Formats: sequence, C-alpha cells, structure tokens
Amino acid sequence: MKRTGFNMTDESDKAMTDHIVSAFDADLKQLGDKLAEMGGLCEKLVAESVDALLRRDTALARRVIDWDRSIDRLQQEIEERAVNTIARRAPVAVDLREVVAALRIANDLERIGDLAKNIAKRVVALEGQFQPPKLAGGVAHISDLTLGQLKDVLDAYTRRDEERAMEVWNRDGEIDALYNSLFRELLTYMMEDPRNIGFCAHLLFCAKNIERIGDHATNVAETVYYLVHGVPLTEERPKADLTSTTTLNF
Amino acid sequence: MKRTGFNMTDESDKAMTDHIVSAFDADLKQLGDKLAEMGGLCEKLVAESVDALLRRDTALARRVIDWDRSIDRLQQEIEERAVNTIARRAPVAVDLREVVAALRIANDLERIGDLAKNIAKRVVALEGQFQPPKLAGGVAHISDLTLGQLKDVLDAYTRRDEERAMEVWNRDGEIDALYNSLFRELLTYMMEDPRNIGFCAHLLFCAKNIERIGDHATNVAETVYYLVHGVPLTEERPKADLTSTTTLNF
Repeated sequence: MKRTGFNMTDESDKAMTDHIVSAFDADLKQLGDKLAEMGGLCEKLVAESVDALLRRDTALARRVIDWDRSIDRLQQEIEERAVNTIARRAPVAVDLREVVAALRIANDLERIGDLAKNIAKRVVALEGQFQPPKLAGGVAHISDLTLGQLKDVLDAYTRRDEERAMEVWNRDGEIDALYNSLFRELLTYMMEDPRNIGFCAHLLFCAKNIERIGDHATNVAETVYYLVHGVPLTEERPKADLTSTTTLNF
Repeated sequence: MKRTGFNMTDESDKAMTDHIVSAFDADLKQLGDKLAEMGGLCEKLVAESVDALLRRDTALARRVIDWDRSIDRLQQEIEERAVNTIARRAPVAVDLREVVAALRIANDLERIGDLAKNIAKRVVALEGQFQPPKLAGGVAHISDLTLGQLKDVLDAYTRRDEERAMEVWNRDGEIDALYNSLFRELLTYMMEDPRNIGFCAHLLFCAKNIERIGDHATNVAETVYYLVHGVPLTEERPKADLTSTTTLNF
C-alpha cells in the first residue's frame, strides 16, 4: 500500500514516521479483523434466516433474532475504532479512504443484519399458519443469488479487488428481476385463494428484505470502487434504469 | 459548550488553542447547517410522498424521486466534512460526540429519504390501478404521527434537548401499534375482494416504510441522548417488548 501524507526530512522524522505508520497499520488491521468477523456473521444470519423460513424452523429464527445483537455491537465497535483512528492518526489519501470504507461497510452490514432479523421475526409470527406448498422455490432462488453476491463482495473487499466488486454491482439487476417476478407470483397466489393472503403478505416482505440485502451488497461494491479509485462511482446502478421513474421494481 | 482536550500552558498556547477552537466551531457550524438543510428536505420529502400517495399525484411522486438525490448528496457532503473535521481537529469528549452524532444523523436521514422515495415509486407504479375508496384514512393517520416524530426529534437535536428526544423515543410504540392494526386491516381488504390485492400490497409496503421512518426518528433520539450524556442509551426500545421474540410487529 502506498503511504502518503508523511514528510520524511531526516532520520528522527523517519523513525517517528515509521512508528506512526505501524501504529496506523495496527489500527487498520484491527478494523479489518472486526469487519471480517461482522461480514462472516452477516452471511451466517442471512443464510440461517432464509433456512428458518424455508424449513419453518421457529427455534432457529429465534436464535437469528438474538445473534443480530452481536452484529449491532460490532458495528458500534467499528465506528468507535474508526473514529479514534482518524482522530489519532489523521490519515490522508488511501489511508483515510481505508478507514471511511470500514465505517461505510459496517453500516451496510448492520442493515443486512436487521433485514435478516426481520425475516426471522416473520418466521416466528407465521408459526402455525397455513402454508401454501409451492411458494418456497422462488424465495430459495433469490436467496441463493443474494447470498452469493454478499460472499463475493466481502471477498472483493478483503482482496481490494475492484473488478470483482464491479461484477457484483452489475449482477444486482438479476436479483431485482427475480424479485419483481416473485412479487407478481405472490400476488397471483393471493388472488387464487384468500387463505394464502396472510402467509404471502409476510413472504412479500421477506422477498423484499432479500432484495434489499442485495442492494446493500451493491453499496459495499461501490465502497470497494471508491477505496481503490479514490473517487465515488458516478454511474447509476444497473437497477436504476428499471426503477427511477418507470418503477418496474417496488 | 464545555471544551476539553486542549492543554493551555501559556499565552501563545492559549492563542493557538483559541484559534483551533474557533476553527472547530466553524466546522461544527457548517456541519449543523448542512444537517438542518438535510432534515428540512427529509421532512418535505416524507410529507410530499404521502401526499402524492393519498392524492394519487404521479407528477408530485416523480418530483419526490428526483429530490432524493439532493438528500444523498448532502449525506456524502456531511460524511466528508465530518471525517475531515475529525482528522484536522482531533476533537475529544463532547466535541467528538458532536461530529459523530452528525455522521449518524445524516445516515438516518439518508435512509428516511430512501423510504420516502420508495413510497413515491409505488405511487407511480399504481397509476391507473383500481383503488378501494376507504383505505387512505389509516395511512394518513400513521403518516401524521410519524412526521410529527421526525419534526420533534430534529428540533430536539437542534436544541440538544435530550428530554424532548426521549419523548419521541417513548412515542414510537404508538406508531408500531398503528402499523400493526393497519397491516391487519389491509389483509382484511385483500381477503374481501381480490381486486384490492394489487393496491393493498403496495399500501402494505408504504405503511411499513412509514413505520420504519419512525424507527429512524427513534435512532436520531438515541443519538441526541448519546450526544448529551456521553454514553449510549442502554434500555431496549419501547417496541422491542412487543417484537423481540413474540413479534406482534412485522
């Protein structure tokens, strides 16, 4: 990593600079470790909330609801460490972007945790309700795709691999298209049989939550782009073409 | 405001300190101005998105969708200014909390803007669809309450009035209760007449968005508490009693 913002004028300055650089590196490593922990926990929460939904496993759903607290705590810790690092080390250029990126990604992961928790809450609420048999397929498909996006973008972040991040960014349109077709399918089931309405209403929200988890993966991809290039991604997201005013996506 | 973290040892240090303090104050004032602008714009967006929904005003909805970009830009500006302020001034104690609070509130306001935009997108999507006549009442009521919460909490932030912020925090349960009854009401309309299903599905999401705007107002209230007291609010939110595992709220 190229270091900037330190003037090395003589040997003692250099020693001081090395000391500051290594203190900053230590801060950054701790931030990275916390983010990796948070990312892993988010992947687990998303996978298990969907698993709980598909298998109607209320006990698992309750565990997901509890685990979300760990994600919230990690976000607070990362925010605190990031702010302290900026205040103590006054990093500039790519160093500053590293810390800001950690802050932003922690925010997106916290939102992903909330969305997974909301799916889990609906599993608990649906306990004992009538379930139309053929609905799980669409949810399983969109979940697999979204979980793949989340894994890929976290991996892209770890490797600072902007190309891989952009692949995630470009694939978000597939999730939106799947969500739109699932939305229409669920409305059709509701119209076919009023007994489906309660279950399908919750499933609509679950599908929407999964689609939004995909949006947060896209946000992380944009953060990786900003981290690598030093400027924000200015293109509109792929989904924007579909949604800005013609709103095929809800 | 009590200033901490500056050691005043002699006159020249004091002059330097005064200079730093006033530079920090100028940074803080700029941050505050940007946040006030963003808060005002958010109130407007929420009010007008709901107005567009209740009056089925597609042109207004399209303007709301466009305005949301200004909110996103303000959030980016506030993040950049806040991070630069921390790096250049290395504030501590209440000064640091001021900057972190601005960062957090800007995040919540950006989410509120997104939720209002999503309501507006649904208004556009619903253009020309069959509308059951009696559904607007419940949405109008929950929106009024939520908009009141948003105004109150932004006012509490401006005045650093932690008591008023806690009133907002405590009132969030009312919004949740209204949302739950609206959710059930909308499902009933869907069951009564399948022609209601398309419209009611979008209305379910609009109601949920409004309820979540209320949650973000509650987050801002927690930030005001943290700003004034220097510690995070550790109590559970009022709604948590209803939702954590018994999930009356979806």
